[in-house]
Amino acid sequence: MKPLLSIPNLAELKFTQDAIKTMIHRTPVLTNQYLNELVGGSIYFKCENFQKVGAFKMRGAASASLRLNTDTMKNGIATHSSGNHAQAVARAAQVLGIPAYIVMPKNAPEIKVEGTRSYGAEIIFCEPTQNARETTLAEVVSKTGAHFIHPYDNYDVIAGQASAALELLEDFPSLDIVMAPVGGGGLLSGTALAVHYLNPNIIVLGAEPKRVDDAYRSLKSGQIEQNQRTDTIADGLRTTLGELTLDIIKRHVTEILTAEEDEIIQAMRLIWERMKIIIEPSCAVPLATILANKETFRGKKTGVILTGGNVDLGNLPF
Amino acid sequence: MKPLLSIPNLAELKFTQDAIKTMIHRTPVLTNQYLNELVGGSIYFKCENFQKVGAFKMRGAASASLRLNTDTMKNGIATHSSGNHAQAVARAAQVLGIPAYIVMPKNAPEIKVEGTRSYGAEIIFCEPTQNARETTLAEVVSKTGAHFIHPYDNYDVIAGQASAALELLEDFPSLDIVMAPVGGGGLLSGTALAVHYLNPNIIVLGAEPKRVDDAYRSLKSGQIEQNQRTDTIADGLRTTLGELTLDIIKRHVTEILTAEEDEIIQAMRLIWERMKIIIEPSCAVPLATILANKETFRGKKTGVILTGGNVDLGNLPF
Repeated sequence: MKPLLSIPNLAELKFTQDAIKTMIHRTPVLTNQYLNELVGGSIYFKCENFQKVGAFKMRGAASASLRLNTDTMKNGIATHSSGNHAQAVARAAQVLGIPAYIVMPKNAPEIKVEGTRSYGAEIIFCEPTQNARETTLAEVVSKTGAHFIHPYDNYDVIAGQASAALELLEDFPSLDIVMAPVGGGGLLSGTALAVHYLNPNIIVLGAEPKRVDDAYRSLKSGQIEQNQRTDTIADGLRTTLGELTLDIIKRHVTEILTAEEDEIIQAMRLIWERMKIIIEPSCAVPLATILANKETFRGKKTGVILTGGNVDLGNLPF
Repeated sequence: MKPLLSIPNLAELKFTQDAIKTMIHRTPVLTNQYLNELVGGSIYFKCENFQKVGAFKMRGAASASLRLNTDTMKNGIATHSSGNHAQAVARAAQVLGIPAYIVMPKNAPEIKVEGTRSYGAEIIFCEPTQNARETTLAEVVSKTGAHFIHPYDNYDVIAGQASAALELLEDFPSLDIVMAPVGGGGLLSGTALAVHYLNPNIIVLGAEPKRVDDAYRSLKSGQIEQNQRTDTIADGLRTTLGELTLDIIKRHVTEILTAEEDEIIQAMRLIWERMKIIIEPSCAVPLATILANKETFRGKKTGVILTGGNVDLGNLPF
C-alpha cells in the first residue's frame, strides 16, 4: 500500500477496506422499532461505538499507519489529539509494534489519557491551545522522526473512515439517505465518497451541533469557516473542516442539518434507553436532526453512523 | 400448544423456542477482549438487554400466553410485578390482542409504570406488600376471568426462559460453563435444563447478591430459604426461589456464587465502559462473581446471560 495523493477511487476504498480488516471489527447494524415509529421511517444504526478503541477513528488510523513503508514505520507514528484519534493511533502502533507519540493538552480528561497510555503510547503534554499542540508535535516529529497522522485532513485517513459506509451498504444496499456527524469531516467525506461510488442516488447528509455549525456555513460559502464558540456537549465535533474534507463534502454532501444542545441530549438519552447501547453525545446529533426534521425522513430508509461510545460515566448530562 | 404440567423435556423446550420466535428477538452474543484478558478466559455474553421489552422475561411471557386456549385467552392475562415481567406480560397481551391486567405496588418506579402502560395494559395499584399484591391479583382474576402468569414458578415460563440458553449453545456449543443470575429462579432453572439436555458436561452456575443469598442457602439446605433483607442494587434478584425452580436447580445447578454490592457495581461499570452496552445491575452479578473467583474461570469458555437493560438513567450508582 502507498499513501493516497488524491481523492481515492472505489478500487482504493475497497482495497483499504480489505487491508485494515485484521485491525478493526466489522460492526453490527441495529434497528429499533420504537425509534422507527417515532420517526415514521426506518433508521439503520451502524454501531462504531462497538469498534476497537470504541470509535470509528480506528479505521482511519489503521489505513494511514498500514500505508507507511518499513523505513518510515520504524520511527513510529505521532499525532496531537485529546480524543478518540489519540487512542486509535496508539493502538495502531501497538498492533504494528512501533512507537507512538501522542501530544495531549494538559487538561485532557484523565480517562482519555489512561486509555491512550494503556495502548503503550508515549504521551507528551502541552498547553491547551492549538498553537502549543502544533509546536509540540513539530518538536516531537523532528526529534523522533515519527510520521504525523492527521486526524482527518488526510486521504489515507478518509479512505479508512469510508470503510464504515462500505460495510453499511453491503449489509443494507437499498438505503435512501446516509447520515454522519461532522467535525473535521474525515468520516463525512469518506462516507460521501463510498456512498457516491456505490449508489449516487443515495442522499448523504451531515449533522452538526448548531453551536459549532462551521461545516453548515462552509458548505454554503464554499470556504472553511471558523466557529465563534466550541462549548457543545458533542465534544468530537468542535473542530472545523480541512481543505481536503471540505472539497469532498462540497462535491457529494447534499446538506448539513444542525441540532440544538437539548435536542442532542434528548436524542442521546433515547438511544441509551431504547437501544440499550452507550453512545457519545457526538453521534446523537444525526438522530437529533432527524427528529427535528421528520418530514424529510418519513417513509425513508436512513443509515446513521454511530461514531463512538467513549463517555465519562461519572459526568452524564442526565 | 398445551400448558406444561411437569419438567419440560428437550422436545418441549425446542418446540417452545420455535413457537415464541415471532414474539421475541434472537439476541446476539458479544465478547470483549479486555474482559477476557482480565479474567484469563473467554466470556460469551448473551445479550438479553437487547430483547423485546429490554429483558429475557419476554421469552417466558410469550411461552405462557401462547399456551392458553382461545377460551382462556379471550379473558386476558394478569400478573403482579413492578418490574420486567409486568412489561413482558403487557406486551404479550398486546401482540395477541387480548387484555392485560397488571397489579403494581403504589411505589413502583414511574418509568416501569409508563413502560407497562405503553403496551396497553390496565394497571391496578395496590399497597406495596406481598399480601396486598396477591389479594389484589386474586380480586382482578376473579372479576375478569384473566389467566394469571406467575413470573417464575411455572413450567411454561421456565420453558420460555430456557430458549436463551438454547440459542447460546446453538451459537457456541463448546462452552465449559454457563452462568445466569438467580432471583426467583425461572431463568436459572430454564438455563440449567437446556444446558443439561444439550451437553451435561457443561457446568451451570448461578450468581446472586450476597445480601439476598436465599438461592445459595436453599441449594445447601434443600428447601426454600427466606431473605432477611432485600436492599440489594440488583433489584431483579430480590425474590426467593419457588418450589418448581428449586427442584430443577437442585438437579442441574452445580453451585451458586455470591457477590458483594460494590463488586456488582464495579462489574456493571466495566460492562458499560468496555462493551458500550447498557445492562441492569442484576446481570452484572455473574461477572462480579467471575472476577472474584478468577481461578475457576481461567482458561475456560464461559457463557453469561445478560438478563436486561432497563435502568433508570437518572439514578445510576456511578
